[in-house]
Amino acid sequence: MHHFAARLHAAIQNKKNPALVGLDPRFAQLPAEFRVPGRYSAGDPAARTASAYEEFSCRVIDVVAPLVPAVKPQAAFFEECGPAGCLALQRVMQYARRAGLIVICDAKRGDIGTTAEAYARGYLAGAEAAAAPWAADALTVNPYLGRDTLEPFVRTAVERGAGLYVLVRTSNPGAASFQGAADDSRPLYRNVAAVVEELALATCENHPFGIVGAVVGATYPQELAELRAALPHAPLLVPGYGSQGAAAADVAPAFTSDGYGALVNSSRGVIFAWERPEYAARFAASQWEQAVEAAARDMIADLARLTPAGKLVESPPGAALRP
Amino acid sequence: MHHFAARLHAAIQNKKNPALVGLDPRFAQLPAEFRVPGRYSAGDPAARTASAYEEFSCRVIDVVAPLVPAVKPQAAFFEECGPAGCLALQRVMQYARRAGLIVICDAKRGDIGTTAEAYARGYLAGAEAAAAPWAADALTVNPYLGRDTLEPFVRTAVERGAGLYVLVRTSNPGAASFQGAADDSRPLYRNVAAVVEELALATCENHPFGIVGAVVGATYPQELAELRAALPHAPLLVPGYGSQGAAAADVAPAFTSDGYGALVNSSRGVIFAWERPEYAARFAASQWEQAVEAAARDMIADLARLTPAGKLVESPPGAALRP
Repeated sequence: MHHFAARLHAAIQNKKNPALVGLDPRFAQLPAEFRVPGRYSAGDPAARTASAYEEFSCRVIDVVAPLVPAVKPQAAFFEECGPAGCLALQRVMQYARRAGLIVICDAKRGDIGTTAEAYARGYLAGAEAAAAPWAADALTVNPYLGRDTLEPFVRTAVERGAGLYVLVRTSNPGAASFQGAADDSRPLYRNVAAVVEELALATCENHPFGIVGAVVGATYPQELAELRAALPHAPLLVPGYGSQGAAAADVAPAFTSDGYGALVNSSRGVIFAWERPEYAARFAASQWEQAVEAAARDMIADLARLTPAGKLVESPPGAALRP
Repeated sequence: MHHFAARLHAAIQNKKNPALVGLDPRFAQLPAEFRVPGRYSAGDPAARTASAYEEFSCRVIDVVAPLVPAVKPQAAFFEECGPAGCLALQRVMQYARRAGLIVICDAKRGDIGTTAEAYARGYLAGAEAAAAPWAADALTVNPYLGRDTLEPFVRTAVERGAGLYVLVRTSNPGAASFQGAADDSRPLYRNVAAVVEELALATCENHPFGIVGAVVGATYPQELAELRAALPHAPLLVPGYGSQGAAAADVAPAFTSDGYGALVNSSRGVIFAWERPEYAARFAASQWEQAVEAAARDMIADLARLTPAGKLVESPPGAALRP
């Protein structure tokens, strides 16, 4: 199976939920065992932090791989550690692929012409993990440089069975400052969404969704509903659930009626669950992996109860693959 | 000297020109000696390409360091080679710093909140090359995510004596598709420029320019003039000269009357000069370093003749540092 949307939907169908776990390691929030001086001895301090991020992320993957369809490593935290962090990111992505997960690299890349091609070839492994140095099934991309700068990403993604998630409407408080710029009374993010839908439609092949999707924050539920309607062929990646304040009911509009069409991301809320009062009350700090598992299961249950993702539990085998 | 604009202007004054050499290694365009099978033996093919990029870039730096104030490595080509490429990028940046060059990492990063902080801490070394894993004096950043997402970059840059170049108006043919979205008859890039000017003004300290600058393509000379006027405190980074079609006269509006205020970038036009007919006629392929030197000198002379940068040749010592 080569087409990204087909692979994504098979993963969602297999796990019967649309939960995406963000791998955003932050040193100060790692469980205590990863911060014991001397645990990692090789290299400079940045390299030792990279080793901690790699081990922590792989252990999170061990916990969540049986539960969720996909993970989203955040490149920034790894890059902050320099080249050793980049090596750790590569290993984490390869490890997640071997664990059967869809891997969305959250690197928000964007550049012009042949430079965009270089990013695309480097990150978009697609259907074969070994096809690129970074083993991403999909990559987040930034559209500011213009429609022509998305095209090299789309070409490589089509070739390799990879996917793209274009930033459309982000979940941060200041997102509207530029994304909300109104052109003919239509905000910029709607113009970006129109381009994404066109690219999604053009890459459907015989699937219900194309390989070009959109990042749409859950923190603006009304806009999420409008964008789901404006983007009938685009898979959505919805950040903002959990730590950023959105509830399951807020993300419900992201889904089609059968429960497909979106992944809902939680990063800190799952990977650092051991810090959250409701889990800290049930698990000792050393039981952080049990807290991760409980938080992932609670998120899955929450999405099933309050969104159309509940339909996934009863979807027949193969349903997602019908055009 | 800590303030980025002061360091940048001292470098421009010292070299008496505003030429920026872009380090965009592309394997197929490397001189033949770097493509000889077996020249690099360590690692996988991507790692061997990374070794070629590192050696080529460092040899370009050897040629241009006595001539120009700054270089701009393009992260994409290095990242395409995976972690080995990231290590090569780090070494190239450190090498350029040791050669006394201002290093602008062209990575076009952008993300929200603490994620933006991670990029900022990782890339913005600022006045002390050892302060971050990547030894950048300055970083290009993408504003699409919103004004609030620029602030973590600005905070780290101020602390460390680093600079930022925010994408405002890029040089690609499709740049207007989103950057040109009109809000109250003002295109988006003008709204982004207004925020950049505000951040530049707030970070001037006692210098004529702030540490937040703008990327403004040379391929739209009229807009370049408008943006220079709208951004009196922002250093400009002007791509598009040479291979992308803009001539020295087109970039003239980027400068203040004394020849400061802008760096003009050429990448392929300098580093792959050996391929250009006018240099191929004068230099054998094996003399590619002489072609690089000739192209850099020609660019410097061209800017001196046709833009206010000619004034730099006669500027008195210390002039750039006067508030």
